[in-house]
Amino acid sequence: MQTEIKARLAALRDEMAKAGVDLAIIPHADPHQSEYMSSHWHLRGFFSGFTGSAGTLVVAKDQACLWTDSRYFLQAAQQLEGTDIILMKEGIPGTPSIAGYITDTLKSGATVGIDGMQFSINAERELEEALKKHGIKLVTGFSPADKIWTDRPALPDNKAFIHEQKYAGEAAADKIAKVMEATAGKGADAILVSALDELAWVLNLRGSDVKYNPVVTAFLYLGQGNSTLFIDDIKLDDKVKEYLASNGIATAPYSGVTQFLTALPASTRVLVDPATTSSAMESPLGDRIVTDKSPIPLMKGVKNDVQIAGIRAAMKRDGVALVKAMMDIEKILSEGKPLTEMEVGRILTRRRSEQPLYFDDSFGTIAGYRGHGAIVHYEATPESNSDITPDGLLLIDSGAQYLDGTTDITRTISLGNPTEEERHDFTLVMKGHIALGSAIFPEGTRGSQLDALARHFLWSEGKSYLHGTGHGVGHFLNVHEGPQNIRLNENPATLQPGMLTSNEPGLYITDKYGIRCENLVLTVPAFTTEFGNFYKFETVTLFPFDLKLFDTDIMSDDEIRWLNAYHKHVYDTLSPELNEEERAWLEHKTIPLTKNNL
Amino acid sequence: MQTEIKARLAALRDEMAKAGVDLAIIPHADPHQSEYMSSHWHLRGFFSGFTGSAGTLVVAKDQACLWTDSRYFLQAAQQLEGTDIILMKEGIPGTPSIAGYITDTLKSGATVGIDGMQFSINAERELEEALKKHGIKLVTGFSPADKIWTDRPALPDNKAFIHEQKYAGEAAADKIAKVMEATAGKGADAILVSALDELAWVLNLRGSDVKYNPVVTAFLYLGQGNSTLFIDDIKLDDKVKEYLASNGIATAPYSGVTQFLTALPASTRVLVDPATTSSAMESPLGDRIVTDKSPIPLMKGVKNDVQIAGIRAAMKRDGVALVKAMMDIEKILSEGKPLTEMEVGRILTRRRSEQPLYFDDSFGTIAGYRGHGAIVHYEATPESNSDITPDGLLLIDSGAQYLDGTTDITRTISLGNPTEEERHDFTLVMKGHIALGSAIFPEGTRGSQLDALARHFLWSEGKSYLHGTGHGVGHFLNVHEGPQNIRLNENPATLQPGMLTSNEPGLYITDKYGIRCENLVLTVPAFTTEFGNFYKFETVTLFPFDLKLFDTDIMSDDEIRWLNAYHKHVYDTLSPELNEEERAWLEHKTIPLTKNNL
Repeated sequence: MQTEIKARLAALRDEMAKAGVDLAIIPHADPHQSEYMSSHWHLRGFFSGFTGSAGTLVVAKDQACLWTDSRYFLQAAQQLEGTDIILMKEGIPGTPSIAGYITDTLKSGATVGIDGMQFSINAERELEEALKKHGIKLVTGFSPADKIWTDRPALPDNKAFIHEQKYAGEAAADKIAKVMEATAGKGADAILVSALDELAWVLNLRGSDVKYNPVVTAFLYLGQGNSTLFIDDIKLDDKVKEYLASNGIATAPYSGVTQFLTALPASTRVLVDPATTSSAMESPLGDRIVTDKSPIPLMKGVKNDVQIAGIRAAMKRDGVALVKAMMDIEKILSEGKPLTEMEVGRILTRRRSEQPLYFDDSFGTIAGYRGHGAIVHYEATPESNSDITPDGLLLIDSGAQYLDGTTDITRTISLGNPTEEERHDFTLVMKGHIALGSAIFPEGTRGSQLDALARHFLWSEGKSYLHGTGHGVGHFLNVHEGPQNIRLNENPATLQPGMLTSNEPGLYITDKYGIRCENLVLTVPAFTTEFGNFYKFETVTLFPFDLKLFDTDIMSDDEIRWLNAYHKHVYDTLSPELNEEERAWLEHKTIPLTKNNL
Repeated sequence: MQTEIKARLAALRDEMAKAGVDLAIIPHADPHQSEYMSSHWHLRGFFSGFTGSAGTLVVAKDQACLWTDSRYFLQAAQQLEGTDIILMKEGIPGTPSIAGYITDTLKSGATVGIDGMQFSINAERELEEALKKHGIKLVTGFSPADKIWTDRPALPDNKAFIHEQKYAGEAAADKIAKVMEATAGKGADAILVSALDELAWVLNLRGSDVKYNPVVTAFLYLGQGNSTLFIDDIKLDDKVKEYLASNGIATAPYSGVTQFLTALPASTRVLVDPATTSSAMESPLGDRIVTDKSPIPLMKGVKNDVQIAGIRAAMKRDGVALVKAMMDIEKILSEGKPLTEMEVGRILTRRRSEQPLYFDDSFGTIAGYRGHGAIVHYEATPESNSDITPDGLLLIDSGAQYLDGTTDITRTISLGNPTEEERHDFTLVMKGHIALGSAIFPEGTRGSQLDALARHFLWSEGKSYLHGTGHGVGHFLNVHEGPQNIRLNENPATLQPGMLTSNEPGLYITDKYGIRCENLVLTVPAFTTEFGNFYKFETVTLFPFDLKLFDTDIMSDDEIRWLNAYHKHVYDTLSPELNEEERAWLEHKTIPLTKNNL
C-alpha cells in the first residue's frame, strides 16, 4: 500500500507540474458539502491511504501532510506509516492551520490548486483571502483525480424513491411554493439546492446513495418555469419521473448542472447558500449569484403534525426493538455465551429490522465497552472488537431510519456491579440531561444558551465533554441536521416548536469508560405569560436509563421525580406492545427510584 | 420650545437644501462612540427637544421622526409634543428600522447626509450598504450644527490628571509597549485610539469630561516616534504635559487629528477598531487603514494584582458607606420623617463621599420605590420623585468611583411586611444570582453560555428580564466596559481571570415592584484537571441581601449555604471597620438562614 500511495502522489505531482500548481489540497468532501459521502468522492483516501471520516491532505512538491482530529490520531498514524505523509494533529499546540502551513511553506507568487467541487463557496473564499495576503494564487479548477484514479468508483446508481405524503405530511408542490416565496424574499427568483438532505426534503424524494443517509445524489434548481433536477437517468424509474414531472420538475444529467447555470438568462437571480454550495458553481452563475442562507433548513427543521405523529410512532417501535435487543444481550451474558461489541450492533440492527417501516440504521452503532466507550466516535472494527463480559460499563449509541421518523439513542449500562466512581459520574451526566430535558425557555432562545444547563454539574467537579450536547435530527433523513443545535459554539438558529434535537451530555474517562445519556427531544410550547411565549422540551425517546447507575444522594427531589415520571411514561407507552416476559423485564427496569433505596 | 424646535428644523432643512441632502440622520453620539457624552454632542437633543440617553432623529424634507426604545416612550411623547416630530417606537411590531424607513421614503438617486464624526466605521458601512441596494447615496461630511446652534456648548475644558501607578498597577510605558506589540501582531505599525476609556487606561490618565465617567476628551495616536495625544491645551497642566512627554507622547490640538492622519507617510499601517472609530477617520487614513478589533479592551478588562487589591479595598469602604447609609434610611423611616427616592440617592452619595479615595458616583443612583422599581433605567427626577413609606419594595442601584476601584451594587429591600409574591419572586431572582455566582466553568467560556444559569428559575415560571445579567466594570473608569459581558446575546469575548463583571438578574412587575440583586464578581482560577483549566467567580461586593425577602421553602440546601457563607464573609470583612452600633446592625442583617426559620 505504501508503494501505491507513493506512486499516486508522484502521479499527482506530475499533474500539478503540468497545471502549474505548487501545492494541492485534497479534502474529504463532495460537491454537496455532505457530512458523509459516496465512495466516488473518497479522493483523500485514495491519495493518502487514510480512511477516516475527517481529514485533509495537502501535497506540496516535496512534502505531503495530512490534517486530522484527535479521533483519528492513532488510525492515521498507522495508515500513513511508510508513505512519507506527515501527520498534522489538529488541536495540538504547535500544529499550524492548513492556511498557516501553506503561507509558511510557499513563497509569494506560488499557486495552490483545489477542485472547486470539493470546497464550499465560504471555504474557498476564506482560503483565497488568507492566501492573497501572502501573494499566493488559488486556482479552483484543479481536479486531476480521474486521470490518476483509473478505477475510481462511479457515482452511485441507486434508485430514487418517493417519500409518501402520509409520512412527509406536506406535498412537494406546497414545499416548492414555500421555498420560492422565501427565495423571492431574499431578492432572488430561483434557488440552486446543493445539500442532499435539503433537496430530499423539498421533493419528498429519498434514496440510498450515502450509507445511513437516505438521500439521492442530485442538484435541484427551482426557477421560473425551468425547474430541474440534475440526476443521472439510471436512478429514475417511471414512477419517480412522472412524479417529478407532475411537480413541474424537469430532469437532466447530474453533470449538466454547471452548463445549465451558464446558459441561464443574464437577468436571473439565483440564490445559493455559500455554506452548502460548491465554489465550482460560482463561475457558471457569474453575476446571477445571490449568496444568502438557504431558507430550507429552517423549514425542514420544524416538523409538521404528521411528521411528529410519525416520530412518536417510530419511537414506540424503536423502544420495543430496544427492549428485545437488550433482553437478547442480557440473556447471552447471563448464559455465559461470548459477546462482542460488533455483535451488540448486529443484535440491535436485527431487532430494529423486525419492526414495521424500518429502512436502515441511521448511523453505525457505537458499542463501546469499558475504555472503548471513552473514544467518542468509536465504531468497533474486526481489529478493535472487544469481548464483553458481565462487568464494567457499556455505551451503546444507535438509531434507525423508519419511513415515519429517524431515531438516535444512547444508553450507558452497567454489566456488573458499578463502582462508586461510575455511579457518581453517571449521575452527574444524568443531572445535566435532566436539567436540559426539563428546561423551559423563552421564544428566541438559542441552543448555545441552554448548553451549560447540561454541563454545569460536570464543570463544578472539573469535568467536561468536548462534543455538542445536541444536534438537530431529520425526519427519515440525516440523523445530523440543522439549523439548530445545542453546543458550546454560538449558532444564531433559535429553538422553535416542532424541532427535534438530541439531548446527549457525556463524560469520557480515558481507558476506563465512556458515559453518554441521549434522548431526542421535541421543542413544544410551554405557556404564554406577560413576558411572552415560553417553550419546553418533550422527550420522545422511549427506553429506560440503567437504575443501577444512579447515586440518589447527589440527586434533588425534582430530579428523582423527573426520572420516575419518564420511566413511568416509557412503561405505560411500550408495555401494550410487549409480551408478558418483556413487560415484566421493562417493569423491573422502570421501578421508581427513591432516595436511599439503592 | 415647540416653536424653537420648528425653527431649528427649518434652519436644518435650509442647510440640507444647500448641501443637496434629502434626509439627515442625527444620532446621540460623539466621535468616540461613547455611551455617555459631553453636552457639546447633544445634537439630537438640540434639534428635537428630546433629552433621553438613547434615540436618533431623522429629518426628511417634509417629515421628521425620532426613534427611541421603550424606556423613553413616555418621555419622548411628552417632549416631542407640538414639534411635528413623529415618535418611532423601537421594538414595537410595525416600527420600521431607520434604514427601512429611509429606503421606503426616499427614491433611488436621493442623498442621505450624516456627520461621519457621529457614526462608527461599522455603523456607517452598514448604513451605506443598506442604502446602496436602493440606489440611495450617503454623504458623510454633513455637519451643519455649528451654523445653527449658535450657543452650542464648547468641548469640556476640565483638567486631565494622572491615575497614579500605585492604583493602576502598571506604568503607561509598559502598557504602550504591550499595545504596540499587539498592534504589530495585527499587521499595523501604529494605532489610533478613539474610545475614551481605552486611551485613559493606556496612559493612566483620567479626567471629568463625562458625568460619572472619569475620562478625558482626546484621541491617542501611538506610532513609530510620532505618538501624539490630541487634546486641547487648556486641559493640560505642566505636570501632565511633563508626564506625557516622559512617555514619549507629544500633544496637539483635539481638532488636529484628521489633518495629522492625512499627513502620515503613505507606508504607515494604522490599526483602528471599526466599532469605536468614527467614520470621519476613514478618508484621512486612506489606504493606511487596518480595521480590526482594538487589543486594548481585553488588556483593560483583565485587572492586575494591584488593581484587584484596590478593588477589594474599595469594596470594603463602599460596604461601610452602605451600612451607614442604610442605617440613615432606616432611622428616617422609623422616626416617621419624610423620605424620597432622590433623598435616598443623596444619602448614598454623602456616605460614600466621606470615604477615603472617593472621587464621584459611578452613575446616577437608581432608587425605585414600588412601581418605579419596575422601570429598569429609572432615575428619580423632581417630577417623578416618590415619597417612601415603611411598606413595599425599594430597589437601589448605585455605585462609586474610588481612585482604587469602581463599585456598582443593587439591593432590593422590603420596607414593611413583604407579600408572599414579593418573597417568591425575590427568591427566584436570588436563586439565579447564586447559581451564576457559584458557577465553575472551563477556560474559553463566554458569558452568553452562563447567562441562562441566572435566568432558568424565572423561565420555569414564565418570568423573565430583558436586560443583560452582567457587564464588565472598569477600574476607576466607566462602570460599563467590555470586552466580556453575561447576556442573552452572543459575544465572543471569553471570561478570563482578572475580569470584573456584574451579576445582576432581576424581575420587573409593571406598576408593582422591581427586583434586582447585583454583586460584582471577579473571575478567578478554580482548579486544573485532566479536562483543562476551570475558573469561578469570587464575589467582591460586600453588603447583605434583605433576609426578610427569602422564601427558604424554594431554596436548596446549597443555596442557603451559599447565602450564609456570603453573609458571614460580609460581616467578618466589614465589622472591624464599624462602630459598635453599626456592627450590631450588620450582625442582625447577616444572621444565618435556616429552612423554615422565617
